[in-house]
Amino acid sequence: MHTLEFTADTTSDGVLSRDFVLGDIPGVLWSGPDGPGRAPLVLLGHGGGTHKRAPAMSGRADLLVKVGGFTVVTLDAPGHGDRPRTATDDREVAAMQAAMAAGEPVGPLVGPYNADIAARAVPEWRAVLDALQQLPGIGADGPVGYSGLNMGTAIGIPLVATEPRITAAVLGQFWPETVAHFARRITVPIEFDLQWDDEHIPREAGLALFDAFASTEKSLHVNAGRHKELPRFEADSATRFLARHLHRAA
Amino acid sequence: MHTLEFTADTTSDGVLSRDFVLGDIPGVLWSGPDGPGRAPLVLLGHGGGTHKRAPAMSGRADLLVKVGGFTVVTLDAPGHGDRPRTATDDREVAAMQAAMAAGEPVGPLVGPYNADIAARAVPEWRAVLDALQQLPGIGADGPVGYSGLNMGTAIGIPLVATEPRITAAVLGQFWPETVAHFARRITVPIEFDLQWDDEHIPREAGLALFDAFASTEKSLHVNAGRHKELPRFEADSATRFLARHLHRAA
Repeated sequence: MHTLEFTADTTSDGVLSRDFVLGDIPGVLWSGPDGPGRAPLVLLGHGGGTHKRAPAMSGRADLLVKVGGFTVVTLDAPGHGDRPRTATDDREVAAMQAAMAAGEPVGPLVGPYNADIAARAVPEWRAVLDALQQLPGIGADGPVGYSGLNMGTAIGIPLVATEPRITAAVLGQFWPETVAHFARRITVPIEFDLQWDDEHIPREAGLALFDAFASTEKSLHVNAGRHKELPRFEADSATRFLARHLHRAA
Repeated sequence: MHTLEFTADTTSDGVLSRDFVLGDIPGVLWSGPDGPGRAPLVLLGHGGGTHKRAPAMSGRADLLVKVGGFTVVTLDAPGHGDRPRTATDDREVAAMQAAMAAGEPVGPLVGPYNADIAARAVPEWRAVLDALQQLPGIGADGPVGYSGLNMGTAIGIPLVATEPRITAAVLGQFWPETVAHFARRITVPIEFDLQWDDEHIPREAGLALFDAFASTEKSLHVNAGRHKELPRFEADSATRFLARHLHRAA
């Protein structure tokens, strides 16, 4: 078992972000300037093609730390950020780009490719969570939430389904085919985002995935607009949702 | 044209509520303890079978005044609260109750009955808004929003469609048949609530009504649960939505 090693610290606008590696998994731990301080932990998963410090991640991490009072972890998913891309990654990404350029549906390509990434990413998240909970500043018994859309949901659904330490999750913007069987095992509170005019994910597909969760507390937020037009206020809403569930548990 | 007459003042927990009548329309104006003070105005419509001071109304009015910084108006809809019930009202209500008791769909009864109430209620809301805007404490040029679910939506949709002073609205929990043609004329920002396990309103019906709005900014909030189980946090969300749009305009 590897030990988590911190490699660099940055403080920006009141948020301390500490780069770390656990074996060959690079990540960032985001907290208030004085460190985690036993705040509840949010695992924040990035979307396809981005990485642990992409603007959507640093923006959401800022909100979660400063407004939500959380400690946040981001990781580079397999084939993303600082991690090597395999020939399979290159081939799959090229196939998705070709389908988009041709106006063909990408769901049948993204679903299986992201399931393959998730099969590697889920044990990585669990190993990082194990390692983080051994740090004295975090502790083994605090509440843990998950937040991730798009590929962050393709990874998040099997992760939440199999990781009992996660007790609330923000998910959304994915197709049901490769993940609904995991969603049916999830009973923790869920906030789920969809775009009503998503050019990639048909409405019925998005609604079917929301329907699949076994959670008695689940909320669906649909907004007018295309795939990439998720309104910024949904990041605020996600922060409030996680605060409602994780601080109550703390 | 009638003049708005205030008949009684109550102050409770920091909110001043002033009963008024405009002709035979009874209403309540809710504000901070010092009066409206040119805060943006929210017209708050009650559901079927309730009234201008029902707990759902006073609770939402409290939030809108204290958290949202609004002045709020509630009215007794025709056949509700302090207003006379006609033989038609009695017959329609009895038919709905019989259908519910028999486990039959109520939408085919509620839709037309509420459309009839709305035809009377819409000009009443507009007359009350005219009268309120002549009060020096409110003024004729401030932003105006609408919020109402169930019958409050049956009245709210034709009201928002025909009243250009209303620039944002919270609606939800209704069938499309009798109101979708008005919804198609609405272009202002909308927040729309549905219950995923509503025993009266089928999912497809609720989603079809959300789809009908022509608004480029519209958000759908669906929660797990039955018709009457709308979570309380949706009242908080409605307050934030109205604040985002009406205070920006102020």
